[in-house]
Amino acid sequence: MPTQLRHFEEELDQLKSKLLAMSALVEAAVYRSITAVVQKDRKLAEEVLQNEVRVNQWELEIDDQAISLLALQQPMAGDLRLITSAIKINNDLERMGDLAVNIAQRAIALMDDPMVQPMIDIPRIGGLVQQMVRKALDAFVARDVELAREVMTSDDEVDSLRTVFFQELISFMQNEPAHIPQALNLLSIVRTLERIADHSTNIAEDVLYYVKGIDVRHRAEAVAGAGSKEPRG
Amino acid sequence: MPTQLRHFEEELDQLKSKLLAMSALVEAAVYRSITAVVQKDRKLAEEVLQNEVRVNQWELEIDDQAISLLALQQPMAGDLRLITSAIKINNDLERMGDLAVNIAQRAIALMDDPMVQPMIDIPRIGGLVQQMVRKALDAFVARDVELAREVMTSDDEVDSLRTVFFQELISFMQNEPAHIPQALNLLSIVRTLERIADHSTNIAEDVLYYVKGIDVRHRAEAVAGAGSKEPRG
Repeated sequence: MPTQLRHFEEELDQLKSKLLAMSALVEAAVYRSITAVVQKDRKLAEEVLQNEVRVNQWELEIDDQAISLLALQQPMAGDLRLITSAIKINNDLERMGDLAVNIAQRAIALMDDPMVQPMIDIPRIGGLVQQMVRKALDAFVARDVELAREVMTSDDEVDSLRTVFFQELISFMQNEPAHIPQALNLLSIVRTLERIADHSTNIAEDVLYYVKGIDVRHRAEAVAGAGSKEPRG
Repeated sequence: MPTQLRHFEEELDQLKSKLLAMSALVEAAVYRSITAVVQKDRKLAEEVLQNEVRVNQWELEIDDQAISLLALQQPMAGDLRLITSAIKINNDLERMGDLAVNIAQRAIALMDDPMVQPMIDIPRIGGLVQQMVRKALDAFVARDVELAREVMTSDDEVDSLRTVFFQELISFMQNEPAHIPQALNLLSIVRTLERIADHSTNIAEDVLYYVKGIDVRHRAEAVAGAGSKEPRG
C-alpha cells in the first residue's frame, strides 16, 4: 500500500476511534442524567455537568479532523460517506450531550423537592431512550442496518408513551396546582428525552446512509407529501 | 480561467443560491407560524404545513450538491469553509423549518380556543426571534461579521424574556387550572421559539467560521470550564 494511502487509512481509523470515545462519553452522560432523576442522585448529575467540557472538546477535534481529511485527501464513495456521516453523527452526539446536561440540571432542581407525584412513566421512557442511544451507536460501530432500523421503530414507541404521560401530567397539575412547578420540570425532562430519541434516530439514519448509501431523510414524504418532525424527519 | 475551475465556481454559486432560496422559505415559515399564533390566522398556519415538503427537498438537494463538490473537486481553505458551513447551515435551516411546523400546529390547536389569558410576551419574543433569523441569514449573504455578533447578543435577550414568561405562566396555571392545557400550548410555543433562536445563533457562528475562519464553539468554555447550551453552545 502506498505511504499516502496508508496514512489516509490510519487517519480514518483515528476518526472512527475518536467518534467512539465521544459516543461512550455521551452515552454515559445520558445514562447518568436519567439515573440522577429517577434515583435522586446528585453526584451523578454533577458528573454530567463536569464532563460536558470533554464532550465539547471531542466535538471540535472530530470536526477538525474530518474537515482536514476532506481537504487534504480526496476521499471517494464509501470513505466520503464515512467522513460526512462522522460530521453529522458528531453534531448529533454533541447535542445529545447538551440535552443530558439539561436533564441533569432538572434533576438537581428536583433533588430536594419531595416527589408528590409518582414519576409515572419517566423511568420507562428513560430506559427506552437509553436503549435507543446504545443501539444507534452499536449500529454505527458494527455497520448493522437491522439494528439501525430498530432504533427508528423505538422512536414511535417513545412518542406514544409521551402522549400518555402528557395526559396524566395535565390531570395532576389540575388537581394539585401547588405542584405545577415540579410537574413542569418533569414535563421538560420528558420533552428532552424525546429529543434525545430523535437524535438517536438521526444517527440511525446516518448509519443507513453510511453503510448502504441510502438517504432515508424525507424520501418517502417527498413522494407522499407527508410531514416530518424535529430534529430530522 | 481553466474550464474545470470555472465549472467549480459556477457550482459554488449555485450552492449559495440554493441555500438562499432555502433560507427565504424557512424565514417565511417562521414569520407565518408566529403570525398564525398571534393573529389566530389558520390560513397562514396551513401554508407552513404545506411548504414543509419544499424545505425538505431543498435540504436534500443542497446536501447532495455540497457533498459532490467535496468529492469531485478538491476545495481549499475559503471554499472548503464555505462548503462545510453550507452543510451545517442547511441542517440548521431544515430544523428551523420543522420547528416552524411545530408552532403552526400549536397555532391550529389554539385556533378555536378563546384566549383566556393575554399572550403575555409571545408577540415580543416572536418578533425578536424573527429578527434573529433574518439577521443570521443576512449575515451569511453579506459575510457580515458584525451582524452575526448581533445575533449572538439577541440570544441572551430571548433567554431573559423567556424566564419572565415562565414565571407569569406558572402563576396563571395556578390561578386557572382549567386552562392548563392552553397554557401548556403557549409554553411549548415559547420553548420552540427559543430553539429557533438557538439555531439562528448556530448559523451566526457558522458565518464567523466561514468568513474569518474562527470557530467560536466552545473555545472560551474549553479554557474557562463553563457550561454550554442546546442546540450548540
